[in-house]
Amino acid sequence: MRKAAVIVGSNSDVPALEGCFETLKNLNIPYEAHVYSAHRTPAEAAAFARGARDAGFGVIIAAAGMAAHLAGALAAQTILPVIGVPMRSGALEGLDALLSTVQMPSGVPVATVAVGGAQNAALLAAQILALSDDALAQRLLKRKEDMRQTVLEKDAALNA
Amino acid sequence: MRKAAVIVGSNSDVPALEGCFETLKNLNIPYEAHVYSAHRTPAEAAAFARGARDAGFGVIIAAAGMAAHLAGALAAQTILPVIGVPMRSGALEGLDALLSTVQMPSGVPVATVAVGGAQNAALLAAQILALSDDALAQRLLKRKEDMRQTVLEKDAALNA
Amino acid sequence: MRKAAVIVGSNSDVPALEGCFETLKNLNIPYEAHVYSAHRTPAEAAAFARGARDAGFGVIIAAAGMAAHLAGALAAQTILPVIGVPMRSGALEGLDALLSTVQMPSGVPVATVAVGGAQNAALLAAQILALSDDALAQRLLKRKEDMRQTVLEKDAALNA
Amino acid sequence: MRKAAVIVGSNSDVPALEGCFETLKNLNIPYEAHVYSAHRTPAEAAAFARGARDAGFGVIIAAAGMAAHLAGALAAQTILPVIGVPMRSGALEGLDALLSTVQMPSGVPVATVAVGGAQNAALLAAQILALSDDALAQRLLKRKEDMRQTVLEKDAALNA
Amino acid sequence: MRKAAVIVGSNSDVPALEGCFETLKNLNIPYEAHVYSAHRTPAEAAAFARGARDAGFGVIIAAAGMAAHLAGALAAQTILPVIGVPMRSGALEGLDALLSTVQMPSGVPVATVAVGGAQNAALLAAQILALSDDALAQRLLKRKEDMRQTVLEKDAALNA
Amino acid sequence: MRKAAVIVGSNSDVPALEGCFETLKNLNIPYEAHVYSAHRTPAEAAAFARGARDAGFGVIIAAAGMAAHLAGALAAQTILPVIGVPMRSGALEGLDALLSTVQMPSGVPVATVAVGGAQNAALLAAQILALSDDALAQRLLKRKEDMRQTVLEKDAALNA
Amino acid sequence: MRKAAVIVGSNSDVPALEGCFETLKNLNIPYEAHVYSAHRTPAEAAAFARGARDAGFGVIIAAAGMAAHLAGALAAQTILPVIGVPMRSGALEGLDALLSTVQMPSGVPVATVAVGGAQNAALLAAQILALSDDALAQRLLKRKEDMRQTVLEKDAALNA
Amino acid sequence: MRKAAVIVGSNSDVPALEGCFETLKNLNIPYEAHVYSAHRTPAEAAAFARGARDAGFGVIIAAAGMAAHLAGALAAQTILPVIGVPMRSGALEGLDALLSTVQMPSGVPVATVAVGGAQNAALLAAQILALSDDALAQRLLKRKEDMRQTVLEKDAALNA
Repeated sequence: MRKAAVIVGSNSDVPALEGCFETLKNLNIPYEAHVYSAHRTPAEAAAFARGARDAGFGVIIAAAGMAAHLAGALAAQTILPVIGVPMRSGALEGLDALLSTVQMPSGVPVATVAVGGAQNAALLAAQILALSDDALAQRLLKRKEDMRQTVLEKDAALNA
Repeated sequence: MRKAAVIVGSNSDVPALEGCFETLKNLNIPYEAHVYSAHRTPAEAAAFARGARDAGFGVIIAAAGMAAHLAGALAAQTILPVIGVPMRSGALEGLDALLSTVQMPSGVPVATVAVGGAQNAALLAAQILALSDDALAQRLLKRKEDMRQTVLEKDAALNA
Repeated sequence: MRKAAVIVGSNSDVPALEGCFETLKNLNIPYEAHVYSAHRTPAEAAAFARGARDAGFGVIIAAAGMAAHLAGALAAQTILPVIGVPMRSGALEGLDALLSTVQMPSGVPVATVAVGGAQNAALLAAQILALSDDALAQRLLKRKEDMRQTVLEKDAALNA
Repeated sequence: MRKAAVIVGSNSDVPALEGCFETLKNLNIPYEAHVYSAHRTPAEAAAFARGARDAGFGVIIAAAGMAAHLAGALAAQTILPVIGVPMRSGALEGLDALLSTVQMPSGVPVATVAVGGAQNAALLAAQILALSDDALAQRLLKRKEDMRQTVLEKDAALNA
Repeated sequence: MRKAAVIVGSNSDVPALEGCFETLKNLNIPYEAHVYSAHRTPAEAAAFARGARDAGFGVIIAAAGMAAHLAGALAAQTILPVIGVPMRSGALEGLDALLSTVQMPSGVPVATVAVGGAQNAALLAAQILALSDDALAQRLLKRKEDMRQTVLEKDAALNA
Repeated sequence: MRKAAVIVGSNSDVPALEGCFETLKNLNIPYEAHVYSAHRTPAEAAAFARGARDAGFGVIIAAAGMAAHLAGALAAQTILPVIGVPMRSGALEGLDALLSTVQMPSGVPVATVAVGGAQNAALLAAQILALSDDALAQRLLKRKEDMRQTVLEKDAALNA
Repeated sequence: MRKAAVIVGSNSDVPALEGCFETLKNLNIPYEAHVYSAHRTPAEAAAFARGARDAGFGVIIAAAGMAAHLAGALAAQTILPVIGVPMRSGALEGLDALLSTVQMPSGVPVATVAVGGAQNAALLAAQILALSDDALAQRLLKRKEDMRQTVLEKDAALNA
Repeated sequence: MRKAAVIVGSNSDVPALEGCFETLKNLNIPYEAHVYSAHRTPAEAAAFARGARDAGFGVIIAAAGMAAHLAGALAAQTILPVIGVPMRSGALEGLDALLSTVQMPSGVPVATVAVGGAQNAALLAAQILALSDDALAQRLLKRKEDMRQTVLEKDAALNA
């Protein structure tokens, strides 16, 4: 199976990615995590993205806050799908990161999830990788059903 | 190759999807287009999404404006990756559609592109399908290089 | 008297609905509460709304946060009036939920109240049900007068 | 059957209410329209709302732009459900009217529809009145089914 | 000297008006404070404003949050200048109150100050009343000079 | 009677002030208009404001767009009430001008009207000047009554 | 004298930079213009910025719209001051470009001007270069005085 | 070497400028700090800016919150580059300060950094001064490389 890459723009964002890492582990998706900044280590970020396809990656998750250029900078260097996670930080609480991530110009898309949506980024990566991995697809189907059951149990409990 | 589905929430959005259809054609990606509304034909929209994986689809593009629930409603029914295109319409010019599409709760991601980003939705779909289709990957690499050459020619012309 | 339904998109929203439940009780309005998610249990949510009119409901209150599709998803399935309560949650503090709830396309309205306006949702439901229930109308008139008296007492106290 | 009232804050908003008037007519709902401004004719607006229930009205639709106080001013005077339509006008294009209409304090709800959502206001009024009028309910059910058929025809045409 | 009126829409806003009351006292401006709500006591609010000029008031300060209609509702009833103070409250933190207060339609102005700008409302009232009260004008000039001196002392301290 | 001053930050804003000039004329309020920019002629703007009170002015209207500093810059130099009119211009359509005008820090208030609210600025100026001019107050009362009659005529016409 | 570089992210932005080019010419500032995209030609953009200081440039102006990463991407590669011009384009009219340009993380500043502020970018570049070029400083002082005179003439004309 | 000036609009903003002062010290840039308010001490602020170039300053950093006019007011008086730091304060959390600082009209630019971006303001000042100071340029280059190394160490630690 192709691996997922999780790139954070700043080490301080790592704890907020916990839900992403856990979900990838629970779904048995091999992944690598890196701290690469679009502005502090642009060469390393670009080099990683340029080589990611040949290095066996299938999808890249990029999380950054404020003027969040990371996902776009990686997407500029690869034809792998890049998932952008706008992080909540600074005075504008992530609205800046959302617009900086999602409003990409024609030719270089970023698959953007919600502000702080680290767990959903992992699920989206899994959905993409599952297109060529039936076992992963089965795990995703089970997870979807589990999620449904949890809500139904909560509903039953509310009315107990 | 798995097909792409392009679902529009309203027939009036079809012209704004032109860039999407063209890009899918140029990249030789088989696709089907449908008009299904999350609010006017919820059963048909749900049924399509539930059956999409077995019907040979690999990715779903969903375009809708205002309180754009379409992409989320389809994502609720499938483990296929769903790409959301917030359409520019109404008094809020697409900001409502952007937030309604991207701010999905944990468990059901939507891969959101820019407001009106129909062409990028097609490219993102292509990047996802290319993970298991080397010929498509080659076409994407060529397109990326062509795009680069176009910019360089524009730069040369500016300085001629 | 027709019943009110209160549907929350997530169990974690139940405490924020307290003012809604209390108001319904104080006004002697029979109600049922459920946890149904537009994205995690779309079939159950749809089935409830489709059957609500025949099951004796007269109005549905739907509370959800972020890309709040719940009210719209229920409204798609019924001709009962649906009251949407955008919940305050996530980085955007409910602005996303407000736009996702109120900006419905032509044909499927949602009666939207303020962000976090759970109590007003109950009052609006009561006002709707009171159209065919004079006793409830009297209770609402009394409550309105009580509210007025409370303000006048506060004014008197301020100037005491 | 109880009547609907349609109150516009300014005569210049009447054309934008066309979809509202047409929908009420198509559904055979008796209605009265008035120009009353919360700021230019506050006494007349208040008097109308205070007397509306006794005058046989069942629901009030109020449309206004900018600092749209009209719906709230009417709701302050009656226990009838008041539907607010924020109009698109001025430099802020209706965002001001939306917030001025929907963000009502506890005790006085306004059932708010989308910016410019005049037609949906009429439908919501119909849904409310239909609770005690089975013939109107049947007309609403038929309209919902017609709306569904229209989308399915558009879908068929797209694929013809 | 004409008096100032300070009207708050909710008793809970009184503490946030402290800076307003203090400033009026420091400037020896006679004032009356009232709790009148545009939505809970519309008749009392309107009656106060209609009679304010004859009762010896020269200016009205109105403070309210969320869909802040209070200042506009008072301005509708009087030709006295009405100063609106948008209060910070609820999920939107006062942006709703600002737009609801300042975006008044032609014919009925509200003199709006900053979100939470209670002290500035008092100063603006003083500036208005000082037009026909030279002693008050002198106190305002002294206060302006004191304010300047305070900044200069802070500057000197920073560089000490 | 004290005069009104109307200061525009840019000559290009003069046509948008037409409603202001007309209203001042209709109300027989003497006024002077000037083009002074807070950024291009800061000394002239400051000098005008510093001398305005002694020159017989009673109120200053200041209209500017974008980072609209003009009203605040004038208010810094005088204890006369300064009315700020945020102009609609540039990419942000006046939201920038609104916040730049209204969000003044403690100590220096600006009486802000709606974006583009030039006519209301004139009315507010009139209301302020009318505190010491009964004839003007009578003209304002008549205008308010005329405005009311116009709405009632429009209402009658709608129902004719 | 060091040169100015003007980099546009897209050839379609060149006309909107006219005011920038003219101002640089009028001030006799040598400059070079290039079309380099942060996303379509990331290597060329980075290479230009890395070599700009040695190539005799003193300041870089970067203009881009939507998720405007260009200024930040260049600033990541150089210690030259980079001036960012957010362009007005797309559904969000430049608010996205503003936040993507200005909200840079610690360590890599971008000197941001107004949305569409191409002429001001040229002036800011001139102010920076004038620190070591007295003749340019004199031209800037003259321009500032001319600007003042123009306003004063407009003021005189208004009152003629 | 020319000095940097750091002007804060309010003494209460001094602590938030710590990162600015430290960065200037670390880079051995001589600076002076002052508390001058555009609204409380307009004359002193203007006088400082008018004399700054002759007093040996090369760049001015101006930090202010809310309707942040300080940077623009200083820029109006000098041809030195002025760097604006919008401070996070009040109900709007700095969005008002950002727009008030960056949206300057043609002719008077302000080099704006992120909301609360005090450290970046110092770095931008350093980049400007380094154009004529090679030793400072070397310190900036070293700092940029140190920043890169820190990220790479964090990346190595993450994968240790």
